Amino acid sequence: MMKIIFIQTGGTIDKDYPQKIGGYPFEISEPAVKRILEKLNPSFEYEIFTISKKDSQDITDEDREKIYKTVKELENDKIIITHGTDTLIETAKKLNDLKNKVIILTGAVKPEKFTDSDAPINVGVAIGAINVLKEGIYIAMNGRIYHWDKVRRDLKTGKFIES
Amino acid sequence: MMKIIFIQTGGTIDKDYPQKIGGYPFEISEPAVKRILEKLNPSFEYEIFTISKKDSQDITDEDREKIYKTVKELENDKIIITHGTDTLIETAKKLNDLKNKVIILTGAVKPEKFTDSDAPINVGVAIGAINVLKEGIYIAMNGRIYHWDKVRRDLKTGKFIES
Amino acid sequence: MMKIIFIQTGGTIDKDYPQKIGGYPFEISEPAVKRILEKLNPSFEYEIFTISKKDSQDITDEDREKIYKTVKELENDKIIITHGTDTLIETAKKLNDLKNKVIILTGAVKPEKFTDSDAPINVGVAIGAINVLKEGIYIAMNGRIYHWDKVRRDLKTGKFIES
Amino acid sequence: MMKIIFIQTGGTIDKDYPQKIGGYPFEISEPAVKRILEKLNPSFEYEIFTISKKDSQDITDEDREKIYKTVKELENDKIIITHGTDTLIETAKKLNDLKNKVIILTGAVKPEKFTDSDAPINVGVAIGAINVLKEGIYIAMNGRIYHWDKVRRDLKTGKFIES
Repeated sequence: MMKIIFIQTGGTIDKDYPQKIGGYPFEISEPAVKRILEKLNPSFEYEIFTISKKDSQDITDEDREKIYKTVKELENDKIIITHGTDTLIETAKKLNDLKNKVIILTGAVKPEKFTDSDAPINVGVAIGAINVLKEGIYIAMNGRIYHWDKVRRDLKTGKFIES
Repeated sequence: MMKIIFIQTGGTIDKDYPQKIGGYPFEISEPAVKRILEKLNPSFEYEIFTISKKDSQDITDEDREKIYKTVKELENDKIIITHGTDTLIETAKKLNDLKNKVIILTGAVKPEKFTDSDAPINVGVAIGAINVLKEGIYIAMNGRIYHWDKVRRDLKTGKFIES
Repeated sequence: MMKIIFIQTGGTIDKDYPQKIGGYPFEISEPAVKRILEKLNPSFEYEIFTISKKDSQDITDEDREKIYKTVKELENDKIIITHGTDTLIETAKKLNDLKNKVIILTGAVKPEKFTDSDAPINVGVAIGAINVLKEGIYIAMNGRIYHWDKVRRDLKTGKFIES
Repeated sequence: MMKIIFIQTGGTIDKDYPQKIGGYPFEISEPAVKRILEKLNPSFEYEIFTISKKDSQDITDEDREKIYKTVKELENDKIIITHGTDTLIETAKKLNDLKNKVIILTGAVKPEKFTDSDAPINVGVAIGAINVLKEGIYIAMNGRIYHWDKVRRDLKTGKFIES
């Protein structure tokens, strides 16, 4: 049976609003992928790992090194990484030399906890593509599957577009 | 026909997550009450006014003065104010000497945009009570209607309880 | 501490869409009130009882007799009954001679499981009013609290209005 | 720019609960795909057509003939059909001899209007796969992309599995 490894690194997709007095900060919480897969009731096996719970902008070179090593050591060849959207492409680039695996990075512009979130659709897009793709590092955003070096972000609209 | 005036001052209830590059700050957006009333399809008349779009902690004495004056000048006697929960009681106290009106303050611990928000229920509680109450300044939180000087916030749980 | 008894009789509010092959019938499931109260995090005590899981139109005289007896024997004086909207008023009428209790009947025109449901607001309205009311049989629909013999349903719009 | 044609035929995915007196039947309403794409904010072009608004079990040979002809005459080569799940495979089979197009059929076991619907994920899975696939008739359900003649439905769980 097909198996997918999901890796949480943080980002908007996983933001929640914990009940605290004063200020009510947004906080990165449990992986949104967990709730999405419960709704999906998948006909594939999966595991979910957490590497970090960070905003995209706070992901350091050390974090990327850790993501790289974790993915490299996985026996599985189908990996979906959820990530903040601001530095999604940077992290994808870092994974460039990993061979014999399909790695798809995705995220969301609205937290999965929001009623109008794009998270379930984006994770769906990544899952759909990983059924078919054989090898390579890809980004799944705005309904498109982009090879990591063929995509850039439109800084005005925030949309990921072909480069 | 019964008429209710809803006043937006800001707070968690109205927080949204606008699509922007970098950081993705939470932002106070359109009044959540508007979306809640669309679902309710009410058998009463209403208007929604915006006085401020501020976090509870940023509400100043000037803001409270403005809320006081706005409410005082309203011809209507049924008023529901949405407000951040951190200083909800403080604003209620400021309205204390307004007579011949029922004023209920409410808010939410999770933004109305969240799938697990308490906002629609809290606004419902305020609406239910305003059908019945004759005069006074009240707080509608955690399913209770408290007279403003009979309530305090449990600083550990964040719940509003009898004082 | 204030205590509310919630009674499930069925109706649209509790309709779910269980996963079955063929036809996919709507089915009355767990009380919606349970999920609503989890979001509310109430500062009151409560219990939820199920009397029936029926469409409003299938509620028989025997069912109404059972509701009557159950409510009569309750020691508690604050009772909220969720019910299908088609015969909500009929059931309220049946409870007319119960004294020393506040009984509020409510329901929904969209199942609580729907993203655009009126259920959380309606249950909120009932809770808000039950904080304040002393005695009597009431209906909480469309944001109004109606004494049971002062309300009728507009057959064109489906809204509950003053009679 | 990539373009996808979405075709509505009906099924659970599009079921809504219109406000009517008496019985409150489930009804197939506007295409769920419309609401899903608004959340996605896609970087591809699309059009949405409606062929029928029928329960899967009511789809006739004539309906299938109409679907076949509509798809055949489309100039576009990327087509996603939303369909009731009971006869999804039957309709896919009917399209078997269409060449030079990728056609993916999907649906949902819970209406898109439900808070716990699988619809946004399923449509996402179809979109993800259609980015990559070149030709053929496929089914996107339970997170898998199945060639239409390599899939069957488990009659106990309702899940689509490899055959």
